[in-house]
Amino acid sequence: MTATGTLYGLGVGPGDPDLITLKALKILRAVPVVAYPAPVEGDSLARSIVAPHMTEGQIEIAIRIPIVAQRFPAQEVYDQAAVEIAGHLAAGCDVAAICEGDPFFYGSFMYLFERVVTDFPVEVVPGVSSLMACSAALGAPLAARNDVLNVIPAPLDEAELKAQLEHIDAAAIIKVGRHFAKVRRVLADLGMTARARYVEHATMTSQRILTLDEVDEASAPYFSMVLVHQRGEAWR
Amino acid sequence: MTATGTLYGLGVGPGDPDLITLKALKILRAVPVVAYPAPVEGDSLARSIVAPHMTEGQIEIAIRIPIVAQRFPAQEVYDQAAVEIAGHLAAGCDVAAICEGDPFFYGSFMYLFERVVTDFPVEVVPGVSSLMACSAALGAPLAARNDVLNVIPAPLDEAELKAQLEHIDAAAIIKVGRHFAKVRRVLADLGMTARARYVEHATMTSQRILTLDEVDEASAPYFSMVLVHQRGEAWR
Repeated sequence: MTATGTLYGLGVGPGDPDLITLKALKILRAVPVVAYPAPVEGDSLARSIVAPHMTEGQIEIAIRIPIVAQRFPAQEVYDQAAVEIAGHLAAGCDVAAICEGDPFFYGSFMYLFERVVTDFPVEVVPGVSSLMACSAALGAPLAARNDVLNVIPAPLDEAELKAQLEHIDAAAIIKVGRHFAKVRRVLADLGMTARARYVEHATMTSQRILTLDEVDEASAPYFSMVLVHQRGEAWR
Repeated sequence: MTATGTLYGLGVGPGDPDLITLKALKILRAVPVVAYPAPVEGDSLARSIVAPHMTEGQIEIAIRIPIVAQRFPAQEVYDQAAVEIAGHLAAGCDVAAICEGDPFFYGSFMYLFERVVTDFPVEVVPGVSSLMACSAALGAPLAARNDVLNVIPAPLDEAELKAQLEHIDAAAIIKVGRHFAKVRRVLADLGMTARARYVEHATMTSQRILTLDEVDEASAPYFSMVLVHQRGEAWR
């Protein structure tokens, strides 16, 4: 009888291929099967991060997720991917699911994880999160001493967003994308604009850091973030 | 005239030497001078993480921080270290300051950063944070979908801790150590005990995961964390 394979949730970091860990790299190079999220048409951002590290002959599973499903992921797409992955695991092959940033920090890996973990061993390899990458890009501590740090998804409705931001020490507003105008409005209402910075594609060659006034609200990508420090040092 | 050196704040990850990034590894191996925090007597945890990766002949600067100063770090110790580091930078030597986890996520690197950045170039290399490492160790997503995640330092006073935890989706209570009894009491008062888990030394060989009832409050180390999920999936 063949031993079953392990599903690895591999955090591969925020974008710079050199921000992958040695552990993720070793596993990535050793596994026969690599799975990654991708748009319905075109290239996978996650795959592009690890492209310099992949080896020849690896079987690739592109999990093609419709854009409209970013909020409510297409369950059937994950069902189908899980079946395909389970087939490899049952045959004794290890599978690495590549995750931008960290697998368990708002990652879509959870949709695979919950489908596979009941039947097969799963190991998560933590990665450098965009949260830390944005802070490094800005050149300012994310949180220090006894600051409370709130990580707040931008899709929350405007009133909830305002309530969450009202009494912060420091906050990271994630998944900004098409919610940018709302985020900018809420921060302006709270008088926090000057203490906020917008970062997109941190650590990638396309990285941009802007004040909120500089951002074109129609162009903010899904992988963008606004960091706010209510007290403590100002931005340089 | 010699070009000045760069101070690198190197996130080296939560403890497993393989959780260092390629970028940090390349810089670590290339610099002539390596600085790290250490206790007044004995070995540095940060140095032990990178020990397998260091090269011969590197100059080492141990920044020996009195234990009592964990809350209010000894300013003179950092003043002195900054002077020593500045000497190397002025002579054109790059210096890597090794940071457990990520340099800007509640890291003591900020004390060096603020002393050096006005005079020399500083680059921060983000690292895998204990936040993500603890979540991976527990085998459960830290935060998902539109959850708000609150990172709350355990040294806050009991009333403040309770107010911060009362309406969470998910929280990470950090720097638990000698504050464990207070943290356990607050979570019990809020009826959250069953949804909380304690993790110490995540990804190290000494890693332990416990329910709150199992923890000996006298023995919790500084590098321990309690994760709480108020809604969403229960712990396995």
